[in-house]
Amino acid sequence: MIALGIDPGTAICGYGLVEAQGSRLKALAYGVIETTPDMEAAMRLKKIHQEIDRLIKLYTPDIMGVELLFMNKNVRTVMAVGQARGVVLLTAAQNDLRLAEFTPLQVKQAVTGYGKATKEQVIYMTQRLLNLPNKPHPDDAADALAVAICTVHCGSINKMRVSNDRLC
Amino acid sequence: MIALGIDPGTAICGYGLVEAQGSRLKALAYGVIETTPDMEAAMRLKKIHQEIDRLIKLYTPDIMGVELLFMNKNVRTVMAVGQARGVVLLTAAQNDLRLAEFTPLQVKQAVTGYGKATKEQVIYMTQRLLNLPNKPHPDDAADALAVAICTVHCGSINKMRVSNDRLC
Repeated sequence: MIALGIDPGTAICGYGLVEAQGSRLKALAYGVIETTPDMEAAMRLKKIHQEIDRLIKLYTPDIMGVELLFMNKNVRTVMAVGQARGVVLLTAAQNDLRLAEFTPLQVKQAVTGYGKATKEQVIYMTQRLLNLPNKPHPDDAADALAVAICTVHCGSINKMRVSNDRLC
Repeated sequence: MIALGIDPGTAICGYGLVEAQGSRLKALAYGVIETTPDMEAAMRLKKIHQEIDRLIKLYTPDIMGVELLFMNKNVRTVMAVGQARGVVLLTAAQNDLRLAEFTPLQVKQAVTGYGKATKEQVIYMTQRLLNLPNKPHPDDAADALAVAICTVHCGSINKMRVSNDRLC
């Protein structure tokens, strides 16, 4: 099983592709899609759409995992993340890709075994689980890898429910 | 000039197409794209994308107008509107359609001459300006028509700045 984890954002959109090979996990690719404020919002979204579509066609993941974010109280930030998130979900639907959503607590639980783990602990365990030579960076790519690990775990224990409104 | 006004939303996405014929305005089409909560979020966004793309290809508007919304304090609502909005902006970019964004105050000002007009006043003036036999409904379609009128006005006085971050 290959999972594509996404950490949606307009300026920086993190992605991570993780493959489960038996009980081992392997990072196939990870990184960020960056857009700059001098680009029009619609063009930024178009770039995100194109890049995620390219990743899906290149790595043919079985499922996409996306983190749920309802913590931020800044309405402008929520709107900007929502716009990027809408494009990410659309790209999944256009590619007939199953989708799972997770709360930050679920991601931390899956990666570290502890729902209140710090960001450093999550990055450390992500590196260990994927046997990466260095800490994955930037943070958005590391977050996306953690979501991908959570998505693979969730799928491998065969309890996955893959609607957008229900969680694993 | 033909303007496509959009009132973005996941459950109900209003649209209105207005053509300027000299000093007269004509409604070419208006209505809503509806999706139901039993559909997965990604599939709802896919339907919105397909319908707006179809409208753009059918009526070949010169510009799309979208209302800015930062008033709602409910983060879940803002996220849902943001997701639909992201798909709307993406569809414009994919069709090389110019884009203008307006605050509710600007839309009210353009349609009624008064930035603090009530919803009823906006609907009344929208009906009058477009010479419609009945009040446009539902509200989301009427809102989209008002945005289209604002977009046409803004374009016709040739002061339009059509980035996503700057307003007319």
